[in-house]
Amino acid sequence: MRIGMIGLGKMGANMVRRLLNKGYQVVVYDQQPSAIQLCEKEGAIAATSLQDVVAQLTLPRCVWVMVPSGEATEKTIHDVSLSLSASDIVIDGGNSYFRDTIRRARELSSRGIHLLDAGTSGGICGLQNGYCLMVGGEVSAYQHLIPIFAALAPSEGFAHVGPAGAGHFVKMVHNGIEYAMMQAYAEGFEILKKSEFGFDLESIAHLWNQGSVIRSWLLELAHAAFAKDPELHLVKGYVEDSGEGRWTVQEAIHESVPAPTIANALFARFASREEDAFSLRLLAALRNEFGGHAVKKNEKGAI
Amino acid sequence: MRIGMIGLGKMGANMVRRLLNKGYQVVVYDQQPSAIQLCEKEGAIAATSLQDVVAQLTLPRCVWVMVPSGEATEKTIHDVSLSLSASDIVIDGGNSYFRDTIRRARELSSRGIHLLDAGTSGGICGLQNGYCLMVGGEVSAYQHLIPIFAALAPSEGFAHVGPAGAGHFVKMVHNGIEYAMMQAYAEGFEILKKSEFGFDLESIAHLWNQGSVIRSWLLELAHAAFAKDPELHLVKGYVEDSGEGRWTVQEAIHESVPAPTIANALFARFASREEDAFSLRLLAALRNEFGGHAVKKNEKGAI
Amino acid sequence: MRIGMIGLGKMGANMVRRLLNKGYQVVVYDQQPSAIQLCEKEGAIAATSLQDVVAQLTLPRCVWVMVPSGEATEKTIHDVSLSLSASDIVIDGGNSYFRDTIRRARELSSRGIHLLDAGTSGGICGLQNGYCLMVGGEVSAYQHLIPIFAALAPSEGFAHVGPAGAGHFVKMVHNGIEYAMMQAYAEGFEILKKSEFGFDLESIAHLWNQGSVIRSWLLELAHAAFAKDPELHLVKGYVEDSGEGRWTVQEAIHESVPAPTIANALFARFASREEDAFSLRLLAALRNEFGGHAVKKNEKGAI
Amino acid sequence: MRIGMIGLGKMGANMVRRLLNKGYQVVVYDQQPSAIQLCEKEGAIAATSLQDVVAQLTLPRCVWVMVPSGEATEKTIHDVSLSLSASDIVIDGGNSYFRDTIRRARELSSRGIHLLDAGTSGGICGLQNGYCLMVGGEVSAYQHLIPIFAALAPSEGFAHVGPAGAGHFVKMVHNGIEYAMMQAYAEGFEILKKSEFGFDLESIAHLWNQGSVIRSWLLELAHAAFAKDPELHLVKGYVEDSGEGRWTVQEAIHESVPAPTIANALFARFASREEDAFSLRLLAALRNEFGGHAVKKNEKGAI
Repeated sequence: MRIGMIGLGKMGANMVRRLLNKGYQVVVYDQQPSAIQLCEKEGAIAATSLQDVVAQLTLPRCVWVMVPSGEATEKTIHDVSLSLSASDIVIDGGNSYFRDTIRRARELSSRGIHLLDAGTSGGICGLQNGYCLMVGGEVSAYQHLIPIFAALAPSEGFAHVGPAGAGHFVKMVHNGIEYAMMQAYAEGFEILKKSEFGFDLESIAHLWNQGSVIRSWLLELAHAAFAKDPELHLVKGYVEDSGEGRWTVQEAIHESVPAPTIANALFARFASREEDAFSLRLLAALRNEFGGHAVKKNEKGAI
Repeated sequence: MRIGMIGLGKMGANMVRRLLNKGYQVVVYDQQPSAIQLCEKEGAIAATSLQDVVAQLTLPRCVWVMVPSGEATEKTIHDVSLSLSASDIVIDGGNSYFRDTIRRARELSSRGIHLLDAGTSGGICGLQNGYCLMVGGEVSAYQHLIPIFAALAPSEGFAHVGPAGAGHFVKMVHNGIEYAMMQAYAEGFEILKKSEFGFDLESIAHLWNQGSVIRSWLLELAHAAFAKDPELHLVKGYVEDSGEGRWTVQEAIHESVPAPTIANALFARFASREEDAFSLRLLAALRNEFGGHAVKKNEKGAI
Repeated sequence: MRIGMIGLGKMGANMVRRLLNKGYQVVVYDQQPSAIQLCEKEGAIAATSLQDVVAQLTLPRCVWVMVPSGEATEKTIHDVSLSLSASDIVIDGGNSYFRDTIRRARELSSRGIHLLDAGTSGGICGLQNGYCLMVGGEVSAYQHLIPIFAALAPSEGFAHVGPAGAGHFVKMVHNGIEYAMMQAYAEGFEILKKSEFGFDLESIAHLWNQGSVIRSWLLELAHAAFAKDPELHLVKGYVEDSGEGRWTVQEAIHESVPAPTIANALFARFASREEDAFSLRLLAALRNEFGGHAVKKNEKGAI
Repeated sequence: MRIGMIGLGKMGANMVRRLLNKGYQVVVYDQQPSAIQLCEKEGAIAATSLQDVVAQLTLPRCVWVMVPSGEATEKTIHDVSLSLSASDIVIDGGNSYFRDTIRRARELSSRGIHLLDAGTSGGICGLQNGYCLMVGGEVSAYQHLIPIFAALAPSEGFAHVGPAGAGHFVKMVHNGIEYAMMQAYAEGFEILKKSEFGFDLESIAHLWNQGSVIRSWLLELAHAAFAKDPELHLVKGYVEDSGEGRWTVQEAIHESVPAPTIANALFARFASREEDAFSLRLLAALRNEFGGHAVKKNEKGAI
């Protein structure tokens, strides 16, 4: 079985490797020629364009799109679909917004093309561990791809979770939970760190992974991080977020579901990126107004 | 009627002025001689020590303590009480923890001395507007002090709210609410500020104070702050907290009351004072572990 | 000056009264004939249809739409605009989503019709106190309506805050702040209520309104509520929300602004309406799984 | 090696079994004679009183106390210590407040008795999996007990984390994190549940445990819970909490650490146990005051 892979970043390239290791043929393409060459050296079939990816596949053609969500995914799926025809299958493995996925699936289906959304989790360790795949879309297309999913995922690590958009919805919620779990550990370790006991966080992370209620893969990663840099001196507390956490809160609001840990985890990330936030300056200004409390002068402002 | 005032900071000195304006005699003391002299010039009677304050009062002697909560209040009440005797009254106008107040009242009452806790709100504007006084303690002592409370407060702006500790409890909750209200405005104005509309925040604060549902004194102060410094360029987003917010959350937990806005307002202040928080560094480190996401290097750590 | 008012609910009917009291002529329409008749008795000019409202106005015709946000507003503005022509002005006084307002203004402007968005606050007390009006849209249209705004609002209680959508944006944030302020008071009064002191909440609400930092109109309303029903025995803790709070959190997320008090206030309302929430059942089930902790059986489930 | 076990509840009895399985002699005591008999049948040595536990041990005597935290632990440690002498070791395996542990260790040390605090995690599955043990106290006492800890814990599942109190501190934070993680999953699954997709939560919980970033033991338990009762119809959303979550938030406040997910997880549990909360009734009453919004009548109140 042969499949196309468009997008050879950290995720896409490793997925190509895993497929090659399992004996599949993979036609690869990326905007960066060097990324294509790297995969070619490891056994992939290079393509020179989206059309060329399609040209090198057999019917029904299966193209896995693994590019950043938003505009890049929109454009890639649109452009590659121009070369596809009825019964072909596009798999969107990125973190697309599920409502976009529903729309795109409807658009493609008008031409008989199937869109599967395969929410993909596992990060850079997926190469070894396999990727957890949450797949939405038509059942017949899903079934056609089962060998590929089985190659990419650990045993039982893939499933059809619903119609188009369902896969990305499940992945979205997965990431919302991920934000809140990460924040939970982060709060806990900071409380340990600032306590009077001078705890060794690396050994506590390791200890908690041995049979405690809160053992998890994220906690194993925390252990790994502390093992490399016990005081986390090399890292700045600047935390990006990438869409899914925001959408999770939006859906919670849409469904009238209270989601305080997910929302507050998201807000902690926002706050990490704000320098001298306006809200905090207003709090300081208000304290000065009513209490005459001294404020720290903003040196930039003093100019 | 004559009263002693110990502690001539921003609050105490203005309270002295307000009492003098209303025709009361006030015997004043502070650790800073200059603070005593300032009040003396304005008509107060200077004392040279806690004992001297007591010596210049008539029976039953009433001493208002207006010093920082915690150790300073503990020591001042203890020390001045050594010169007092049965039927004398100490008023603690500071932000003491109500459980300390209950204990202190019990200790003083063993010698027949009354302790009133007068939670005091109004800030530096209290001189003009009067102070809102939430008083706990024995009713007889409260009644004796009514003329003083009436002089300090606006009309109907003082009340006996319960036994010893009740006044400080009510003031504690007042400040917890204050934190959450301030945070509510701060969030709202930041959302306005960052919007595409380029709003004039001074005029919106003023507008909202004319008949809107959210009009309040704090919003008038926000208007004043924007009038002076529309972009809040002169203020750093570094926000202190002073005990009552923390105790409010503790009491909420003690009573099993969900208090998300008060607790999260407190946490926003904590976060405002953390530089490169450990929790955030752990979040960044975890993202790097599972996703290979780039982290911003901490330059201090890189040394 | 003559104006049309469409929608004679609690808000619209009172606004008609206020305009009549100030000497304006108001042509009124509502889906309920009885609502029209009521206003007619008080001096308004009855109309039999949207077209009839327009027919009874003079150029440029000004029509104030005061109907529920969403579909009703969409349809009313669309339908009435069919009878309008260039230079006429529609004012949307409801709680429309500001992005809808921007779209509608653009649609109407293609035919030369102006849409002003007048975020309106003040509730049922607006009849006496005046309404706070936050107006967006074209300046020339705003200026034409100033006499009407001045009649509806308290002195200085109306302002032009920006282009189309800006008025509804400011009102949206106003309501987000309102949710968080209400929640702040609600948490505080519950902490008082459950304390060991047995506080009289009516008198504390009144006291806090006399010079304290947290005095506000909402606190005056809390006092009124406690005066009528000190234990709030007559009210169920079931709290609706109406769009603006949700949109405020969405915009906060859109702008990457941490908004913990507004979001958590919204979540408290969601939770108030959930009976036996699924999330809570999962928590109970998990405790049972790892700890063998007894769960309360759900009687409905036992069937 | 022989050890005493006081408290034969769900945790204590299983720990006895695990120790017996590993070849240790265990002298057991509980207030319930039937609990003692059950353990005796499985090979434990029955004791008739705390003194009798001590009498049947060899020097230095090691007594593991596994009773509810608070008064029961206070009394048990005090009472058993009356029969102990210098060099004997008490292990508190319960969820005691770490400041109590520090005090108790100091009290016992005045008589040469060692107190180890062994925070114990793993729940009812600990019998098979082993218990994660976070131990505080003197190193020499810890070293003496290593064979017992090794028998109870999985490999590497025990460690000395610091002086007296440190073990309970680490366990406290562990449980705080646990609350927030559970809440994170609970929010996520409710969002899935209420979505338009009609997800099969059992299969999603299973899927996520296969290589996803959020895989964990708690998620395995969620899978088990859904497998037994897919709609959680048999469980009421009434969620207890047991001290450690509260103390974690208190310590966070003490250390000025923002802990929004842990605090809000705690508040969700509080809210789950409130029927018709006062705060929510005040929100409904306020909406009625300013907007004339209908309130749901409280039928109990209507009487």
